[in-house]
Amino acid sequence: MRALATIGLIDGWRDEPYPVMPEWGDAPLLQMERAAVPHFGIRAWGVHMNGYVRREDGLHMWVATRARDKPTYPGMLDNTVAGGQPIGITPRDNLIKECGEEAGIPESLAAQAKPVGVISYCHETLDGAKPDQMFCYDLEMPADFTPVNTDGEIDEFELWPIDRVAVRVRDSFDFKFNCNLAIIDFLIRHGYLTPENEPDYVDIVLGLRRPD
Amino acid sequence: MRALATIGLIDGWRDEPYPVMPEWGDAPLLQMERAAVPHFGIRAWGVHMNGYVRREDGLHMWVATRARDKPTYPGMLDNTVAGGQPIGITPRDNLIKECGEEAGIPESLAAQAKPVGVISYCHETLDGAKPDQMFCYDLEMPADFTPVNTDGEIDEFELWPIDRVAVRVRDSFDFKFNCNLAIIDFLIRHGYLTPENEPDYVDIVLGLRRPD
Repeated sequence: MRALATIGLIDGWRDEPYPVMPEWGDAPLLQMERAAVPHFGIRAWGVHMNGYVRREDGLHMWVATRARDKPTYPGMLDNTVAGGQPIGITPRDNLIKECGEEAGIPESLAAQAKPVGVISYCHETLDGAKPDQMFCYDLEMPADFTPVNTDGEIDEFELWPIDRVAVRVRDSFDFKFNCNLAIIDFLIRHGYLTPENEPDYVDIVLGLRRPD
Repeated sequence: MRALATIGLIDGWRDEPYPVMPEWGDAPLLQMERAAVPHFGIRAWGVHMNGYVRREDGLHMWVATRARDKPTYPGMLDNTVAGGQPIGITPRDNLIKECGEEAGIPESLAAQAKPVGVISYCHETLDGAKPDQMFCYDLEMPADFTPVNTDGEIDEFELWPIDRVAVRVRDSFDFKFNCNLAIIDFLIRHGYLTPENEPDYVDIVLGLRRPD
């Protein structure tokens, strides 16, 4: 991996070991540097959390804008908190860590995040195939809390009415490619997309849980 | 179909026309009597609703017991409200109708049921294959409301602590085969099953959304 990085085939070395395993829960066959994983078509896992606020004027969601100087997907819209799943930490502990680093959410609040399922997809890029699975979380947040980034990965947070989030996901490519999936899943579970208002309802629901 | 029923190959004629269509949303190719559908391996749809109550001592779910004289799955445990999806009515209107007939839930309350996704499976029986899809709903119910059956299809309703529901689904075959799926889906979406407490978490989440 180091040699491939030296000749420029792998860039953005993170020093984050990812497990190589066929399915979640299998014993890892080996560890691999995160930046190398997509080049080998190896499945990776991550955690994605949508933070939302119930207000009198309706449900709102905290939308993050990725740092303009971030190497991957700079300036794109993102879920409230998201991160890759390295080896040696549970998804829950990883989410709590990311909540602190990315959004300044204290552990007492982050611990209330609710696991709500898994999204499974395969994303093809020029670097290779990413057959990824994302553990999804919802966190209902108090109206007087404002996320603050602490690790330089997010430029700003904005609280959007859920309809604005839904329209942006539908009509643009402004959200990073997999963050839109976590939002669509949220819209389904919270009853905003329905069998009556979305002709492709069944396809979308099943499409978020693609097997290999 | 009538001839097949006459010679006993199709029993339990319901006089309920089901649409024959490859996927939800397609134009129906024809209509078929409900009781005949599994004999032809044709996909059918249904609505399943879990009614729950938030109490100080934790979340509770209304569990139904199917009538002991019902032709299919007599005496088995069931979701609060469930029914097949006939032709010519939307899932939402069908659910509201079933809420009234099966559980005496008034339209004003039933209309608050939230669509939360689709479960997709193929069930093999001696009669044939059932590649079914269920539209799932959650309904948060007031603590002072008790469901009452009006059509003779349910013998009783009981309000169970969610842990008791989860253990019964895990350790027995007392729930009708597809109602347990709607409960597992509920347990996932509400954070009772987690990546940490369920080794087969990913398999279960994806398994509830099987494509063809």
